[in-house]
Amino acid sequence: MNSSQFVLASRPIGLPSSQNFRLEKISLGDLKENEVLLKSWYVSVDPYMRGRMNSVKSYAASFEVDEPIKGAIVAKVIESKSKSVLAGDIVVGMLPWATYAIEKVENLRKIDIQKVPPGYYLGVLGMPGITAYFGMMEICKPQKGDTVVISGAAGAVGIVAGQIAKIHGCRVIGIAGSDEKCKLLKEQFGFDETINYKTSKSIRKEIAALCPESVDAYFDNVGGEITEAVVANLDFHARIALCGQISQYNNSKPALGYSILPHLLTRSVMLQGFIVSNYSERFGEAITHLTKWLNDGKLKYTETIIEGFDKLPEAFIGLFSGKNQGKMLIKTE
Amino acid sequence: MNSSQFVLASRPIGLPSSQNFRLEKISLGDLKENEVLLKSWYVSVDPYMRGRMNSVKSYAASFEVDEPIKGAIVAKVIESKSKSVLAGDIVVGMLPWATYAIEKVENLRKIDIQKVPPGYYLGVLGMPGITAYFGMMEICKPQKGDTVVISGAAGAVGIVAGQIAKIHGCRVIGIAGSDEKCKLLKEQFGFDETINYKTSKSIRKEIAALCPESVDAYFDNVGGEITEAVVANLDFHARIALCGQISQYNNSKPALGYSILPHLLTRSVMLQGFIVSNYSERFGEAITHLTKWLNDGKLKYTETIIEGFDKLPEAFIGLFSGKNQGKMLIKTE
Repeated sequence: MNSSQFVLASRPIGLPSSQNFRLEKISLGDLKENEVLLKSWYVSVDPYMRGRMNSVKSYAASFEVDEPIKGAIVAKVIESKSKSVLAGDIVVGMLPWATYAIEKVENLRKIDIQKVPPGYYLGVLGMPGITAYFGMMEICKPQKGDTVVISGAAGAVGIVAGQIAKIHGCRVIGIAGSDEKCKLLKEQFGFDETINYKTSKSIRKEIAALCPESVDAYFDNVGGEITEAVVANLDFHARIALCGQISQYNNSKPALGYSILPHLLTRSVMLQGFIVSNYSERFGEAITHLTKWLNDGKLKYTETIIEGFDKLPEAFIGLFSGKNQGKMLIKTE
Repeated sequence: MNSSQFVLASRPIGLPSSQNFRLEKISLGDLKENEVLLKSWYVSVDPYMRGRMNSVKSYAASFEVDEPIKGAIVAKVIESKSKSVLAGDIVVGMLPWATYAIEKVENLRKIDIQKVPPGYYLGVLGMPGITAYFGMMEICKPQKGDTVVISGAAGAVGIVAGQIAKIHGCRVIGIAGSDEKCKLLKEQFGFDETINYKTSKSIRKEIAALCPESVDAYFDNVGGEITEAVVANLDFHARIALCGQISQYNNSKPALGYSILPHLLTRSVMLQGFIVSNYSERFGEAITHLTKWLNDGKLKYTETIIEGFDKLPEAFIGLFSGKNQGKMLIKTE
């Protein structure tokens, strides 16, 4: 069986380019016991994958040069040498960016696409949604009446995090990078207020004006100047869920910024960096809640789906200029 | 009764100077019911007081220009119109920087100076010691075998925080500003290793060399470049007790520095800003433990005592160039 796969051609310096990826033809071997042949269907591109393209120590192991990129993928089972996963089943797993792949069934999870679109298992019911759930519930700890600010609010994690805060009776301010995204956040996802950071003259002053009683919790996906502006408006005993730093991922060197520590000190702020796998024993709890909120119509969701396996590098690079609304996915056919 | 008091003559810009303080003669009125006349004995100067000299919102109210500076003072009761506090008693309270003062007894606490020197109530058994206790026990959560780094290690809070970590079986690295202080930390206070940040060629590399298994907890009194260097060496799930930022207190504008957030994110670090009053309902617990450790010889302590009430501004300003070893105090006579 022939397959095509994207390998890491070279480690990106700064913003990744198509030069950092190489499409290769490979030949897959024969299936062994408890393995399945998979055809990739929906492929997830996520900001955290940028970190894996560096060689430095992080929460996820580095990708190796000349080896395939791996990420979350929904795939169709074409052939099976397993009794638990059969041809025709739909599965999700951490798989190579390849048109076809062979994988052990123990690394796959069967999914039901009758009630939920397949891409949701890569978003609201996958890593981004579960990340939003634990960051909001365990770190931001939303209380009725709290003011909660979300950066990267129109991304896959941000839209879910903001809606979870709304479900818990908070006033939610979303920061995003276009008027169109801001409109979507208010009209489709029920955010109370939004700030377009690209056109704002002073994010700090806009937050101050929108949050006269200061900010009780901040869900940070972006870092940099946006975070400095939010931190200047935090209330005493505020909580920060440090979920992402997309503004920093392409820096070759750490960026200079104003120290936020004096603010965190004088306001007794708690900040917790986290990755979803810290909560891996409790994923079931998150999925149960997210599914119920989706079914009850309390949680809405959106995807930016790009067609064509060959568009994978382009879709991934597009994350860093905010080309996505909600979850960014590639559909291979 | 005549008294002399230091008022805030003007708000400091940057490092305070003697010009920001003015000594005034005042005349005290008559004692009312439940008031006492006090003669100041030991006067505490503390880094946090710098923040109160600004007009910006912080955890403690601002000092007003032309009004007396207030801080923790041990005083002798000269006259009393109270049945609970009598002439001859020794008390501690938040009092004006004055040679004499009249105060309501409800704002004072009687102390016993038979077993413990009076200055200890301004240090190891006062705000600095209690701060060290809660920052270490509640935020750093020292576990046997942990590597703990303390910045400002030779200050009033740092020497106590480091020893509490030692009592709990940790390996403790202290960062201080002279070879003399480093020697004191190792020989008198049992720190395992020290770094003189003023002569270190790379604090980051020195920490890496001293902590091959990374840093589990960081008690930060100083901020700035020292904190950037420690953060680069934190282990997964490390804890930071954000207690002070003395390197930043004299900045007129926030300082630029390298963003530490990407490190805190990828290592799932928890950082908690705090002030001792967050734990005010549990002060008794801290004092009980600190007293027991002192009595058992497990906790040692040192003071830098400057004689003469008129030296108060000079002693306070000296904190920012690290003129103190342990707690800095003025003895008025």
